[in-house]
Amino acid sequence: MEGNKGRYRLLFVGGDSRQLRAANRTAENGVQVNALGFSELTAGIVSRIDDINDRNFDYTAVVLPLPYTTDGVNINSPEFKKKLPVSDVFQKLPVDCCVLAGKCDTNLRKLAEGKGITLIDYFDREELQILNAIPTAEGAIQIAMQETPFTLHSSECLIIGNGRIGKILAKMLHGIGASVTVASRKRKDMAQVISYGYKSLEIGRMYDNICNYDVIFNTAPSLVLDADMLSKTRRDAVVIDLASKPGGVDFETARKMGIKVIWALSLPGKVAPHTAGDIIGKTILNILNELEAKQ
Amino acid sequence: MEGNKGRYRLLFVGGDSRQLRAANRTAENGVQVNALGFSELTAGIVSRIDDINDRNFDYTAVVLPLPYTTDGVNINSPEFKKKLPVSDVFQKLPVDCCVLAGKCDTNLRKLAEGKGITLIDYFDREELQILNAIPTAEGAIQIAMQETPFTLHSSECLIIGNGRIGKILAKMLHGIGASVTVASRKRKDMAQVISYGYKSLEIGRMYDNICNYDVIFNTAPSLVLDADMLSKTRRDAVVIDLASKPGGVDFETARKMGIKVIWALSLPGKVAPHTAGDIIGKTILNILNELEAKQ
Amino acid sequence: MEGNKGRYRLLFVGGDSRQLRAANRTAENGVQVNALGFSELTAGIVSRIDDINDRNFDYTAVVLPLPYTTDGVNINSPEFKKKLPVSDVFQKLPVDCCVLAGKCDTNLRKLAEGKGITLIDYFDREELQILNAIPTAEGAIQIAMQETPFTLHSSECLIIGNGRIGKILAKMLHGIGASVTVASRKRKDMAQVISYGYKSLEIGRMYDNICNYDVIFNTAPSLVLDADMLSKTRRDAVVIDLASKPGGVDFETARKMGIKVIWALSLPGKVAPHTAGDIIGKTILNILNELEAKQ
Amino acid sequence: MEGNKGRYRLLFVGGDSRQLRAANRTAENGVQVNALGFSELTAGIVSRIDDINDRNFDYTAVVLPLPYTTDGVNINSPEFKKKLPVSDVFQKLPVDCCVLAGKCDTNLRKLAEGKGITLIDYFDREELQILNAIPTAEGAIQIAMQETPFTLHSSECLIIGNGRIGKILAKMLHGIGASVTVASRKRKDMAQVISYGYKSLEIGRMYDNICNYDVIFNTAPSLVLDADMLSKTRRDAVVIDLASKPGGVDFETARKMGIKVIWALSLPGKVAPHTAGDIIGKTILNILNELEAKQ
Repeated sequence: MEGNKGRYRLLFVGGDSRQLRAANRTAENGVQVNALGFSELTAGIVSRIDDINDRNFDYTAVVLPLPYTTDGVNINSPEFKKKLPVSDVFQKLPVDCCVLAGKCDTNLRKLAEGKGITLIDYFDREELQILNAIPTAEGAIQIAMQETPFTLHSSECLIIGNGRIGKILAKMLHGIGASVTVASRKRKDMAQVISYGYKSLEIGRMYDNICNYDVIFNTAPSLVLDADMLSKTRRDAVVIDLASKPGGVDFETARKMGIKVIWALSLPGKVAPHTAGDIIGKTILNILNELEAKQ
Repeated sequence: MEGNKGRYRLLFVGGDSRQLRAANRTAENGVQVNALGFSELTAGIVSRIDDINDRNFDYTAVVLPLPYTTDGVNINSPEFKKKLPVSDVFQKLPVDCCVLAGKCDTNLRKLAEGKGITLIDYFDREELQILNAIPTAEGAIQIAMQETPFTLHSSECLIIGNGRIGKILAKMLHGIGASVTVASRKRKDMAQVISYGYKSLEIGRMYDNICNYDVIFNTAPSLVLDADMLSKTRRDAVVIDLASKPGGVDFETARKMGIKVIWALSLPGKVAPHTAGDIIGKTILNILNELEAKQ
Repeated sequence: MEGNKGRYRLLFVGGDSRQLRAANRTAENGVQVNALGFSELTAGIVSRIDDINDRNFDYTAVVLPLPYTTDGVNINSPEFKKKLPVSDVFQKLPVDCCVLAGKCDTNLRKLAEGKGITLIDYFDREELQILNAIPTAEGAIQIAMQETPFTLHSSECLIIGNGRIGKILAKMLHGIGASVTVASRKRKDMAQVISYGYKSLEIGRMYDNICNYDVIFNTAPSLVLDADMLSKTRRDAVVIDLASKPGGVDFETARKMGIKVIWALSLPGKVAPHTAGDIIGKTILNILNELEAKQ
Repeated sequence: MEGNKGRYRLLFVGGDSRQLRAANRTAENGVQVNALGFSELTAGIVSRIDDINDRNFDYTAVVLPLPYTTDGVNINSPEFKKKLPVSDVFQKLPVDCCVLAGKCDTNLRKLAEGKGITLIDYFDREELQILNAIPTAEGAIQIAMQETPFTLHSSECLIIGNGRIGKILAKMLHGIGASVTVASRKRKDMAQVISYGYKSLEIGRMYDNICNYDVIFNTAPSLVLDADMLSKTRRDAVVIDLASKPGGVDFETARKMGIKVIWALSLPGKVAPHTAGDIIGKTILNILNELEAKQ
């Protein structure tokens, strides 16, 4: 681990087991870490506090979960009995404190701005997005294995989109022995797909070719598999949609046609919470290192 | 497809969806196929018969399921209401007929010998064993993904044994991004493991090293993970035992220690029945081709 | 092939065997193609013309080689006895003609602008750069194999830079069985390197770690391997510099220290001229398709 | 390193740089090693002796090179000015001494038998053969890269034979991005090829398909590419024959047809002498360990 983390004092507030793991990863790297919002701390080196007033509030940074809130009012803290209003936490913060949070919204930004506090959204960090693509891809593969009566090995898999998730998913499917085709729009993506040894399909030609695939993974954030496209899809194909809301599949039409569609959201926290926590912890450490370097 | 399959008339007797799929694969290659022992034949080109006496018994070969029996008396036919005694089937066979069956035992061999009938165990065929290792390995990976809170990517995986299953399992795990170690006894296996880019562990050194692994796959047909070895295994490791009965793990001790063990038997039929059926069908066709070539 | 290429009439002027191959690739896709600047046309479907005045100059596009000139005056045409001044060619061009050239410079841009002619540098196209990275990486591997007394399999290889060439080089070296480390600066590159299963080295930590590598590939366009860094490099290491002029290695210091350095420039044309020509042809076709779509 | 090697005293006699490297590898593992038959010992921890009578001959084992002789009379010692007759060496050996040699022949076996000396051919060891397949495959790839005007990436490669060399060659070519087909005869080999993700070709169908390949690697020890087969081979294909004498190609016919054939023998020592030496050293150590375990 780089730098001198000893002078940081962090408070993790709220979150699930991922956040606790992130807290421990951070502490293992020499940062002093407390955690608030957990009824019990299983194995780990982080010290629990049970009330925001329990201790002299001398933290240099506070870490909120991913997402930081689910109701817009309280910190997202499913493992804690008491409520932790966001505003209460902010009231305690000294001005030179820094807040790291996942999926910041306008409310949070206003709160931070009002107090002149530095707010950093760690979910925006590119290294977190790239690392999160790993459990996402692995989760998608797990679902595909569960939902198909055949092996992925030798099956025809189509990945729509050549972004972060598409790239690592292609690599893993290829590694298991699937026949991998990636549908993309840009020439540079098509060239990259060829260079990695997968088959490339221009997205405009999907309508004529989609009938060839046993498993279809969508990573594109738009309605790619509409009624028209589904009409050409095999009835026994399995579709796994990794696009966030509103999703990339006309679910209702697929249901009527008898095509199995799994809309798989937030896979990292579901299929690999430890890995997801480690990724958050690693990103927090990167941010602390950069803050330190700036000073 | 090689040869002239047209002159074969096959009867598939019993089995589950795999056997039906095998029957269809065979029929698609120009062999005339009937099936007995299925209450209904979903999609396919095979003709159903409902009673062994339904038709003039002019078959050139009869295919029994895998395993051919589960009670030692009747053909294994879970999808049929009536019983199909093995002896009844044999009574009908003309002497020049050939029987292909999975997991032949002494009883079956005696029956065949008594009538001078050629009996071939397709489960003994090496190409079936090699192809079956694919769904076995994929099933093992699926279980590992389901049972672990971390990604296989970057995890430390130990495979005990470098046989057919060990080899393809290593390849797939490596393809997903796991760190793969293979424990084997022979120098040639250790060399082969190194040449494929995995880490090699001499099986005699497992006791001192087993503490390093997150997931342990056993493919060796002996009690490798005994109480001693388990005492050195991490409590949060996941053990997947692929060895047939009596298994390679001291299950009782593992349970007491809180180590999660999954004993995964007969994976091909469970996780990928279509693929398993295709493999049987392909092997049947190979056998028919060879019989034909001999004549 | 997409679109209606029939209405295009192309003239390829100059270049080596790559350009001739590109001309043939284009012609095979339904474009009418002539070539000027070749003493003989081996196998192919392109018609040769020997003088720029040989024919009515009714071309819709003219393709110049890569690079289009080497002396600043004439078209780069090593396989032709006569000179082909750039200005002569431009004089013949009708205003609605389009010029596709490799490595355009200010002179060429001015010439085109003066006549109101559309000038497109196909060497700037991202798909060409990505595809060209393939022969570059393969050429680098060929050199490494030739220059080392050990196998790349199991050797410690360092790639400096995670750009187009670094990425595909890492993939290929890993595919041969080398132990691959990629040195990069950005967090996102380091995350991507980890996700692909290679070792990641923060470029700032190279000085302390460079002693571990048997083969070092530089793809970064700056003096990375200066005297200081070389002082820590093993004397028996092989360094392959893929950075264009002025190169990424202090060649003089390396020579004095006895470290073998190969400065490998323009590899695609040298190690795989056919592939390099195919890539140019493919890119030309992409450009024609896009021009057509615009109209 | 296993065991207590301290009590071994080894004498390496003859050979080239590989043997010297093997000697040093052995010495690094705690074995006391002298070397005879080298005019100078570059870097290393082995002690040179210059005459077989230089020292009290108290060696526990003597290691002869690979092959141990080239003229049938003297030890193969290209780096030594004096002759080293095999019989002279044997005269010195005490009865409890052990001789390890590469490519033992009847003469050597008789000599050993006559003195009641244990003779072990390390070239027969399966782990050496498997590890030697690595530099052989890498050397074949290097040659293919040098001899073709296109990249192996995306090229159609045919490997004839699925033995030790065929297997690792397929893996490496696939790793570079080639399209790999393996021709084999046995069902089990064809199944294994499919399971690893390559295309499988039944060797009986080669005649009808050989026209599809850009590069053909022969590993089968028989005349596979005879005049008939060559007549169907593309004139611009490159054939690399890895079969030992008399080779697997009708070289004369190929020459007449203008098909480029490279007969590549003894690649490990040529393309990667260091690796080849390490493999010999490792095998010697394995043998010593086993001898020790027996006692």
